[in-house]
Amino acid sequence: MNDVHKYIDTNAQRFQDELFDFLRIPSISARTEHHADMKACADWLRASMQGAGLDASIHDTKGHPIVLGEWKGAGENAPTVLIYGHYDVQPAEPLDLWTTPPFEPTIRDGRVYARGSVDDKGQLHLHIKAIEAYTRTAGSLPVNVIVVAEGEEEVGSENLMPFIEKHAQRLACDAIVISDSTMIAPRSPTIGASLRGLAYFELRVHGPRSDLHSGSYGGAVINPATALARIIATLHDEKGHIAIPGFYDDVLEMADFRKQIGELGYDENTLAEETGVPSLGGEAGYSTPERLWVRPTAEINGLLSGYTAEGSKTVLPATAMAKISFRLVPNQDPATIEKLFRAHVQNVTPEGVRAEIITMHGGRPWRARLEGKLVEAAARALESAWDKPVVYAGEGGSIPIVPEFERVLGAPVLLMGFGLPGENAHAPDEWMSLENYVYGAHASASLLDELRGG
Amino acid sequence: MNDVHKYIDTNAQRFQDELFDFLRIPSISARTEHHADMKACADWLRASMQGAGLDASIHDTKGHPIVLGEWKGAGENAPTVLIYGHYDVQPAEPLDLWTTPPFEPTIRDGRVYARGSVDDKGQLHLHIKAIEAYTRTAGSLPVNVIVVAEGEEEVGSENLMPFIEKHAQRLACDAIVISDSTMIAPRSPTIGASLRGLAYFELRVHGPRSDLHSGSYGGAVINPATALARIIATLHDEKGHIAIPGFYDDVLEMADFRKQIGELGYDENTLAEETGVPSLGGEAGYSTPERLWVRPTAEINGLLSGYTAEGSKTVLPATAMAKISFRLVPNQDPATIEKLFRAHVQNVTPEGVRAEIITMHGGRPWRARLEGKLVEAAARALESAWDKPVVYAGEGGSIPIVPEFERVLGAPVLLMGFGLPGENAHAPDEWMSLENYVYGAHASASLLDELRGG
Repeated sequence: MNDVHKYIDTNAQRFQDELFDFLRIPSISARTEHHADMKACADWLRASMQGAGLDASIHDTKGHPIVLGEWKGAGENAPTVLIYGHYDVQPAEPLDLWTTPPFEPTIRDGRVYARGSVDDKGQLHLHIKAIEAYTRTAGSLPVNVIVVAEGEEEVGSENLMPFIEKHAQRLACDAIVISDSTMIAPRSPTIGASLRGLAYFELRVHGPRSDLHSGSYGGAVINPATALARIIATLHDEKGHIAIPGFYDDVLEMADFRKQIGELGYDENTLAEETGVPSLGGEAGYSTPERLWVRPTAEINGLLSGYTAEGSKTVLPATAMAKISFRLVPNQDPATIEKLFRAHVQNVTPEGVRAEIITMHGGRPWRARLEGKLVEAAARALESAWDKPVVYAGEGGSIPIVPEFERVLGAPVLLMGFGLPGENAHAPDEWMSLENYVYGAHASASLLDELRGG
Repeated sequence: MNDVHKYIDTNAQRFQDELFDFLRIPSISARTEHHADMKACADWLRASMQGAGLDASIHDTKGHPIVLGEWKGAGENAPTVLIYGHYDVQPAEPLDLWTTPPFEPTIRDGRVYARGSVDDKGQLHLHIKAIEAYTRTAGSLPVNVIVVAEGEEEVGSENLMPFIEKHAQRLACDAIVISDSTMIAPRSPTIGASLRGLAYFELRVHGPRSDLHSGSYGGAVINPATALARIIATLHDEKGHIAIPGFYDDVLEMADFRKQIGELGYDENTLAEETGVPSLGGEAGYSTPERLWVRPTAEINGLLSGYTAEGSKTVLPATAMAKISFRLVPNQDPATIEKLFRAHVQNVTPEGVRAEIITMHGGRPWRARLEGKLVEAAARALESAWDKPVVYAGEGGSIPIVPEFERVLGAPVLLMGFGLPGENAHAPDEWMSLENYVYGAHASASLLDELRGG
């Protein structure tokens, strides 16, 4: 193992150069104009896996390809670890808010700034480099390893589970390792205890056939933008509770986890300073980490209506649009939430306009099993890399395929994230800590070693 | 007079060709990139006025130039008529909703489709052509005439009144004629009885320093888009009344005008069909024409926040913006409304975000004097052109400079509009009726004749 760790340290600069190449590819899965970049990124990744000693292959899907890396040399009786990550990234807009361009990785203060640096290219790449370190020094891996990298995580992972189901035999494993989340604080190695689910919609309110003069028609024609705002305002009550009837019916109170959270010593000031808000806020009766980890939300992700450019235009808009998503907690189900949301919108939409709801994507919430060999091995691996005790924390974001992986492959998922608070995932100036990138590679290598012998 | 009217009919095609040239100039006052077009449009207009027999001149302002046409040959004792119009137009977006491009005038079904066709180039041009018909046939005009054409009507007319005040002596007149409004129905020549005022704002709600991941932060950071929607939802109560404290304090009930409106036989179905709305709506207790002409409104003219492009992005936006305007009725004052609006927003803005209000522009409401020589002359002129009785109707839109003109020049304003319901002013596929363009020119010529002798 010493050789493996030494290899990682010796080659850290080269690993970083390669990561930069990976980050330069604008693999934005949501945009059709980046189709060729997605393909180029999959090719790059296949070569990278191959270089690390894996048998790598590209598998076309109805959407973007899946890149698979396999090493089964440990034999049928040895455990198999499946590592999952994604090579697609979020759109980079608004571009003018980036300090340096999103696809020109730049180091400032020990951080790599680039779209996809932490979500999830950096966190995927460090596992590949850990594997390379093993195969180049020991000539083999201590366990069988499968790496699955998809290109559609940011657009709903529609084609991943059909692929996993189809190849369930080939992908059979004893543990699923995912690094697509954050540590609770710098130098606090963290194992993920929970994930929120997601139900994402576009709500369109239609009024007049075309935009109208707000003077000539205003007052007698219901304004779709006003109607949309009034619908949105019904999503919460005055206390910040979600006011859609039935919304909380399936929510677990998770008293045990809330007790653990209370003992974490979560620092709210850090979050307020990091985000720059006048004050934090949210649902009455819950602490900040509870609001993030064990309580569902309704968020407006986008608003568009009428005239939005420079100056003023006295228009009564024909239509108004909101992107609305719900974060879900155990045991909420996205399909049930969709039904409740549709019924609620129908109920509160004013006369004179028509509401249309388009379902974008969704995913179930998840809770980790926090006992057993996998978690224990991971705790030892992380503690050896950071020389600090592991903490167990929730994650406000969603990785919809986590519960699906467990269901289809029948193996437990381990969330071992190397992001950090304030990393700007999905926002301008996304970054990943270079220290976490290197320590993460050490932890990944140690985990393979810890899992040796099952 | 027969020669004048004959000249108009004989030259109608040439007039129309010249109007098309006028409409081809994208004189969008709100956009700095159209600065040169504004200048070109003013030059074109000066030449057109000169060609009609007026002494034409261009007067620079701090913004876009004012074009002045003058003919004082009727002598000091003859009455002077000032005709006002504007050569600037609204932005044309959304461009993809135009059947034919906004600056390539096209005739379909007896209508000229183009941005500015009815608002206000067509309505200004027909007066110039009436003057031309007079000077070319009679060699003189029956009254002194001044034409004032500004280039900033669509952006608040900031520099017009300073110009009028500075040149009040030169612009002294007995009547002010403005054609920038609509007839109540096809072939119903209409004199404007009222205009609504305007108070236009941009409301910006600021939350976190930059866009955040809606999963990692949602629930603990107040969402500015949600906050904006909640603020907007407080602008009206459930009955459609504006819920800003004090908003109606200065509103005149105008029982006499409401009685007149009730006798108009206003056809609500036409408006519903024309706009394509599921149903009309608005403030409880008022009919559709009352909602448009004697009641104030609060309209959302634009909404923008977060991610609005194709697909989905799980972002918690840093900021959310609404363009909000109020239409005012006598005796509301835009400055008072601004104070009430600012106090209300401050009062209802949730903790955790910061609201900022930017004042764009405003204007006072107006009521016409519906007796006296000017209105009687106009009624005869319109009735002779259309061979139909004149109706007196309100106008939901605003021409903020109308009450200002009366104040500064001490002469009454006549609103003699040649637009029609459904003309799409400020919207895609704006059009003007060619019949109204020609009949309007006849009516304009007749009005000058009717005003002969004061």
